[in-house]
Amino acid sequence: MMVWQKRYSPPGASPGTLHLPSALRGDVRITAIHYSPGAYSEEEIIDLDDFLRTAPGDGVLWINMDGLGDVSALEKLGQHWNLHPLSLEDVLNVPQRSKMEDYEHYAFLTFRTAFMEAPQHVCMEQVSLFWGTSYVLTFQDEAEHDAFEPVRNRIRHRRGHIRQHGADYLAYALLDAAIDSFFPVLETLGEELEALEEAVLKAPTRETMEAIHAIRRTLTHLRRVIWPTREMVHAFAHSESERMTGSTRVFLRDCYDHVLQVLDVLESYRDLGGSLMETYLSAQSYRMNEVMKVLTIIATIFIPLTFIAGIYGMNFDGAKSPLNMPELQWYWGYPFSLALMAGLALCLVVFFRRKGWF
Amino acid sequence: MMVWQKRYSPPGASPGTLHLPSALRGDVRITAIHYSPGAYSEEEIIDLDDFLRTAPGDGVLWINMDGLGDVSALEKLGQHWNLHPLSLEDVLNVPQRSKMEDYEHYAFLTFRTAFMEAPQHVCMEQVSLFWGTSYVLTFQDEAEHDAFEPVRNRIRHRRGHIRQHGADYLAYALLDAAIDSFFPVLETLGEELEALEEAVLKAPTRETMEAIHAIRRTLTHLRRVIWPTREMVHAFAHSESERMTGSTRVFLRDCYDHVLQVLDVLESYRDLGGSLMETYLSAQSYRMNEVMKVLTIIATIFIPLTFIAGIYGMNFDGAKSPLNMPELQWYWGYPFSLALMAGLALCLVVFFRRKGWF
Amino acid sequence: MMVWQKRYSPPGASPGTLHLPSALRGDVRITAIHYSPGAYSEEEIIDLDDFLRTAPGDGVLWINMDGLGDVSALEKLGQHWNLHPLSLEDVLNVPQRSKMEDYEHYAFLTFRTAFMEAPQHVCMEQVSLFWGTSYVLTFQDEAEHDAFEPVRNRIRHRRGHIRQHGADYLAYALLDAAIDSFFPVLETLGEELEALEEAVLKAPTRETMEAIHAIRRTLTHLRRVIWPTREMVHAFAHSESERMTGSTRVFLRDCYDHVLQVLDVLESYRDLGGSLMETYLSAQSYRMNEVMKVLTIIATIFIPLTFIAGIYGMNFDGAKSPLNMPELQWYWGYPFSLALMAGLALCLVVFFRRKGWF
Amino acid sequence: MMVWQKRYSPPGASPGTLHLPSALRGDVRITAIHYSPGAYSEEEIIDLDDFLRTAPGDGVLWINMDGLGDVSALEKLGQHWNLHPLSLEDVLNVPQRSKMEDYEHYAFLTFRTAFMEAPQHVCMEQVSLFWGTSYVLTFQDEAEHDAFEPVRNRIRHRRGHIRQHGADYLAYALLDAAIDSFFPVLETLGEELEALEEAVLKAPTRETMEAIHAIRRTLTHLRRVIWPTREMVHAFAHSESERMTGSTRVFLRDCYDHVLQVLDVLESYRDLGGSLMETYLSAQSYRMNEVMKVLTIIATIFIPLTFIAGIYGMNFDGAKSPLNMPELQWYWGYPFSLALMAGLALCLVVFFRRKGWF
Amino acid sequence: MMVWQKRYSPPGASPGTLHLPSALRGDVRITAIHYSPGAYSEEEIIDLDDFLRTAPGDGVLWINMDGLGDVSALEKLGQHWNLHPLSLEDVLNVPQRSKMEDYEHYAFLTFRTAFMEAPQHVCMEQVSLFWGTSYVLTFQDEAEHDAFEPVRNRIRHRRGHIRQHGADYLAYALLDAAIDSFFPVLETLGEELEALEEAVLKAPTRETMEAIHAIRRTLTHLRRVIWPTREMVHAFAHSESERMTGSTRVFLRDCYDHVLQVLDVLESYRDLGGSLMETYLSAQSYRMNEVMKVLTIIATIFIPLTFIAGIYGMNFDGAKSPLNMPELQWYWGYPFSLALMAGLALCLVVFFRRKGWF
Repeated sequence: MMVWQKRYSPPGASPGTLHLPSALRGDVRITAIHYSPGAYSEEEIIDLDDFLRTAPGDGVLWINMDGLGDVSALEKLGQHWNLHPLSLEDVLNVPQRSKMEDYEHYAFLTFRTAFMEAPQHVCMEQVSLFWGTSYVLTFQDEAEHDAFEPVRNRIRHRRGHIRQHGADYLAYALLDAAIDSFFPVLETLGEELEALEEAVLKAPTRETMEAIHAIRRTLTHLRRVIWPTREMVHAFAHSESERMTGSTRVFLRDCYDHVLQVLDVLESYRDLGGSLMETYLSAQSYRMNEVMKVLTIIATIFIPLTFIAGIYGMNFDGAKSPLNMPELQWYWGYPFSLALMAGLALCLVVFFRRKGWF
Repeated sequence: MMVWQKRYSPPGASPGTLHLPSALRGDVRITAIHYSPGAYSEEEIIDLDDFLRTAPGDGVLWINMDGLGDVSALEKLGQHWNLHPLSLEDVLNVPQRSKMEDYEHYAFLTFRTAFMEAPQHVCMEQVSLFWGTSYVLTFQDEAEHDAFEPVRNRIRHRRGHIRQHGADYLAYALLDAAIDSFFPVLETLGEELEALEEAVLKAPTRETMEAIHAIRRTLTHLRRVIWPTREMVHAFAHSESERMTGSTRVFLRDCYDHVLQVLDVLESYRDLGGSLMETYLSAQSYRMNEVMKVLTIIATIFIPLTFIAGIYGMNFDGAKSPLNMPELQWYWGYPFSLALMAGLALCLVVFFRRKGWF
Repeated sequence: MMVWQKRYSPPGASPGTLHLPSALRGDVRITAIHYSPGAYSEEEIIDLDDFLRTAPGDGVLWINMDGLGDVSALEKLGQHWNLHPLSLEDVLNVPQRSKMEDYEHYAFLTFRTAFMEAPQHVCMEQVSLFWGTSYVLTFQDEAEHDAFEPVRNRIRHRRGHIRQHGADYLAYALLDAAIDSFFPVLETLGEELEALEEAVLKAPTRETMEAIHAIRRTLTHLRRVIWPTREMVHAFAHSESERMTGSTRVFLRDCYDHVLQVLDVLESYRDLGGSLMETYLSAQSYRMNEVMKVLTIIATIFIPLTFIAGIYGMNFDGAKSPLNMPELQWYWGYPFSLALMAGLALCLVVFFRRKGWF
Repeated sequence: MMVWQKRYSPPGASPGTLHLPSALRGDVRITAIHYSPGAYSEEEIIDLDDFLRTAPGDGVLWINMDGLGDVSALEKLGQHWNLHPLSLEDVLNVPQRSKMEDYEHYAFLTFRTAFMEAPQHVCMEQVSLFWGTSYVLTFQDEAEHDAFEPVRNRIRHRRGHIRQHGADYLAYALLDAAIDSFFPVLETLGEELEALEEAVLKAPTRETMEAIHAIRRTLTHLRRVIWPTREMVHAFAHSESERMTGSTRVFLRDCYDHVLQVLDVLESYRDLGGSLMETYLSAQSYRMNEVMKVLTIIATIFIPLTFIAGIYGMNFDGAKSPLNMPELQWYWGYPFSLALMAGLALCLVVFFRRKGWF
Repeated sequence: MMVWQKRYSPPGASPGTLHLPSALRGDVRITAIHYSPGAYSEEEIIDLDDFLRTAPGDGVLWINMDGLGDVSALEKLGQHWNLHPLSLEDVLNVPQRSKMEDYEHYAFLTFRTAFMEAPQHVCMEQVSLFWGTSYVLTFQDEAEHDAFEPVRNRIRHRRGHIRQHGADYLAYALLDAAIDSFFPVLETLGEELEALEEAVLKAPTRETMEAIHAIRRTLTHLRRVIWPTREMVHAFAHSESERMTGSTRVFLRDCYDHVLQVLDVLESYRDLGGSLMETYLSAQSYRMNEVMKVLTIIATIFIPLTFIAGIYGMNFDGAKSPLNMPELQWYWGYPFSLALMAGLALCLVVFFRRKGWF
């Protein structure tokens, strides 16, 4: 499960200066895709200065940076498209709250993609996206994972209308891919919840409880991430920028719907998690009580019997008085005492059964 | 109970392309009803191309598709009335969040109907509805179930004013039928809650607990479905389209009221479910405690008695000393010991009773 | 306690047709009061057609129908004042959500009155009210109960200003009487809550728990009824109709205040109910634990004693070895063993007491 | 703790008639303070008619009535300043929901002051305030308590600017004094919560639980009172009356802040109360479990020992067979049996300790 | 943990008079920083009158007062910049609710900084900030702690753009520093929550429970502080004053984001705290039940065995009757009885194991 990380710049940092937390250092891979309805090219950028000098002016340019380790590249991109220092700083401050910030000549969006790392491990990656008139820049904080391959394939193979649309549609497509990445995660969580539900009702163990606690924590965390995403998609869909075309707005409305769906599912999973914990407690206490009841019944039946045996183990001297335990001298004494005990046990069993205790 | 299903298109799918999840493949039945105040015809469509070519232009045309297995039919209908690819895609993505989307020449609504499959099984069916100037298209994802027969009968038998109104009234009537389908389900749930309430107060078992958990889950799920329906009916009633007449708007206000009523009932059922779980826990612990108390009391009374019997079972040699258990040699020794035990038991019983323990 | 009833028309019913659920059939009593500042008449209507033909045009006419069994009377009234079929249908659909619907020439309000039937039974009656320029029609679904007698008396005896005002004031006065009918019910519930509180803290029984559960259910139900009433009174007070005079608006503001007060009280009662349940559980577990503690202490003290008695009940043969239980042959053997037991018991008692266990 | 009282007028009462609930009858004391920047007079009013006839027209006049027993005085004041019957009625209906009602020539405010009666008793007093161009009338329902003495002193001793301002500032000052009266109460509650917190963590008893329940009830009640006060102060601060000066508006903003602060504190106290109850339950169960654990361990250790003693108390006849309990005839028999028991006890102790049970 | 303090002025105080609570008396240190893009000076103020007389008119002047013990200095500053008495009073009333108040020629902000005093101690300091055209005044209530050193360093060393901007940017920078001071505190709390989580799942003790309770209380308190801060930053960012430049507004948007992030984290921590308490209770009850189960099983196995031993300890006289315990005279009697006991014990163990009890 993702842990909340330090996001604050080192004390004394001026807002808007770029500083890379050591945790984010690592390899960086920058790729560029340039396309127009008719043309398409894709390359990995080695020399960024060179690339920016010769970058074409028409069509849509999408530069993606996997990993945040190269601060100077970020600065160069910022200078080339005149991006606000605060937005650049937000790229490096991980994790950010999902948000959209509208500047005059571009918009800055930050959001998350989700994926399962191990079967039980929900991970998230922060994506920062700059959307200008004819370009989209994306920054992903983890170099290994990439949620945008499907979008790339649609550009490459001219699937759908993506090549016909501008940068606004590309920004939408990337955002939609990010939100869609939550659905398989939700599904996995849903399956785990169902497995837990069965475990709770069938055979609850200590591990069940820990798993319920863990899944509740994950759901709380996901909700914290998705809640501001809702606002962000809303703000994006209602952006008043003229770079946004009406047709993309229609698609964004659909995207907003998906976020709401994610939230709905999360909320009902959270409900379910709480209800599961209650049911777990009640099921476990039920099982425990069953155990205790049977054991106590056994004990309770034998205690009076042992008492009777104790009576006839007393050493009163029958020689001194005919009143002193004459039963011990009776011909039928022993069978009588055994019968007494059996009768008493029977009475108790009948009594318990009539009370409905077992 | 309905389980949350995969809704996402296969990775790499472009938004707006039609792809049928394998779970939805199956038989499809397309029917058309065409009516005007004076005329009425009903037929099952075999050749859709042919039908669309000869479809009449006046009156109201309602095409209903039971089952979603025929993607090509959906595409043909989409081309004929120029429907947005996103709406068509939403028809196949099951389940959808209830919503209304306003396009220039038509509106797209998606919502659910509810029904009881088995006595204990709440099921839901997704309905997608396209509402244009003179046509209504509906798509239901399950071929076996149909919630719209009453509306069909009203058209057939000219009951009410439906034949006098246009497509807007038909869309309303279908939506109203869908929402009304929740009332019998709620009633069944209400009856089950009452049965559970009685079981909890009379004789709570493990099954009671499982049933409470199950009904709470169902209520959570229903609420997740109904909550966005409220917004949708509101949006529909306040649609600014000129295809909406004032008289239908009045009826929609009534329909909105019904959704609110469903939500009110759901909320108080959810409250009741939570309160039931608490009451169950407390009732069960009460019963368990009663059992434990009686058993412990029996044990506690006999333990001191057994102790006394143990005393007189000791083998101190009375021959060696007159102090060694002289009671054993007394004439009244045994009766005395029995009386001692009886007296002690009585004291304990009186003490417990005075404390109010049984 | 009122149970949620079927509200839906039989399947296939067209919205706006009048159909009487069989549960509502029964005797009907229609009364008319006609008044103006100077005049006043009151009569029971036998022949409605006749009455409507000769109804006076000036002053305020209030027709009240107790019981809903006479659908034809409802239809006649609807035709006479040109009421929308949907409103008429809502009169028969019991229970309705409280609401106000504004039509051009009249407004339709539906709300509830509350009363105690048995000492422990909260009942509600649905009132439907049509408010036109010079008339008010009211429909109550239960023939036996009537919350409007005080208003009638004010008209009869010219108390207050009611005779000086028009139909808007009468509608207000009836609504206010309905809302005021909740206060005695709340007071009864408040008294019961206090009684339960005392029971919980003094001597909680199984009945206490059931009563807490029942009162929580009643409060949930009342809240469900009152919540929409708030909106309705708000809508009524802000009605833009010119039939509403400024002075009545001032009174409605007061009426709105009363609804808020009812809601405030309900909310804090609900809080109290939840807190009571928790306190009950904790008090009961406290009592149970007290019982278990004392019993266990008794058992624990006697178990070691019984063990010692068991030791000296062993049959090791002192004749074979001087090591075999020489105590049995001692002169002070028996007193020594008794002292040993008494000492051990004392130690345990002191130990328990020091630990603060009793 | 204050108990919810009957507020409803007797059935049949017309809204706007004055009727004094018997609980409010009692002594009444009416005082008048008249001031202007330069002058100041204070008197107790004996003959109200006389006073009103000769009341000065300039400066600010503040009439305060302690106790509500004199309905005729209320009526006279109402006639003199032409107050709406509904407001006068609200003065007598105790308790009222805090509210402000704007009339053309005056405003009516009702709110509460709080004070501690006994060390553990939170009391509230209802204050009704009429604010006109040059006068303020206040009515307090309890004759003994008075929250306005500090304001009087400021007028008397010309402290602050109160003598320079008009009636609006006086109304503000009184309202502010009322809200400030909640702070000492909150502080007392905060101290009690802290004491309870310590008690819960150190030595929870039955009284602790009752005290937690009581304080939660008090907090619920206070919140019910303060919540509408917030709205009221807001409405007062945004009153559009021209009697309100800009400088008083600034002070009211401060007053609004105080209400919010009271609410914030209340909310976190309520949170704390709920958390305390949970902690109490858990602490008590912890203590109980500790007790049970030690006792059970003692019992469990002695039970096997007693069993061994029981074995050697059996009466098998060694004379009949060398197999019949030869231990009894051994030279080291008794020491062997004691060692066996001691060894077993030791094993159990080590086992329990290794399991971490004590 | 910070405790809620008396905020109310002594009874009878007029709003707007300065009175220093004794708790705040102590040493005071006043420093002044004056800067413009090109110049910079810093000094500690000894003679305030003198300083104010010679204060430069251009550039930005920031006067900071550490500790609130010098009321006369506060008054002098208030007179020099014509500050409203209410704002000055709010400086001394500690703690204040975070708020912004807009006056014509300046704005008054009050907020908190947070820091860890001891490893486990969250402390907060109230900061009052006056923001005028060319000056910023800040007041911190604790003399020892200072959250603004980073801002000072940025001014001193010309880091970032702070020297290029006006007083609005300085106010923003200080507010941002205050909000950023919450992040390390949150991180510490997050680490403690994780430690508690591990403790709960591994080895819950009484201290764990107390720590959970304490951290929940701290989170409740922090939320109470941060919630109004959100509104305040919002109000500040949307201030309509012309002293606010567009570029600072962009930075404030970022600052608002940080507050939201703090709130998000707090909310999910609060969720986590509640879930932890539930998990603690369930884990502890699980452990306890494990203990009880093993102990009870041991007891239950030995009770029947002891009963059998008791049987053969009875003293029925075999000489009187061949039926009286003939087993005692059997050759294999003793081995038989031991085998009987072993067999019974085995049966019970097998039975328990098959039931899955250990």
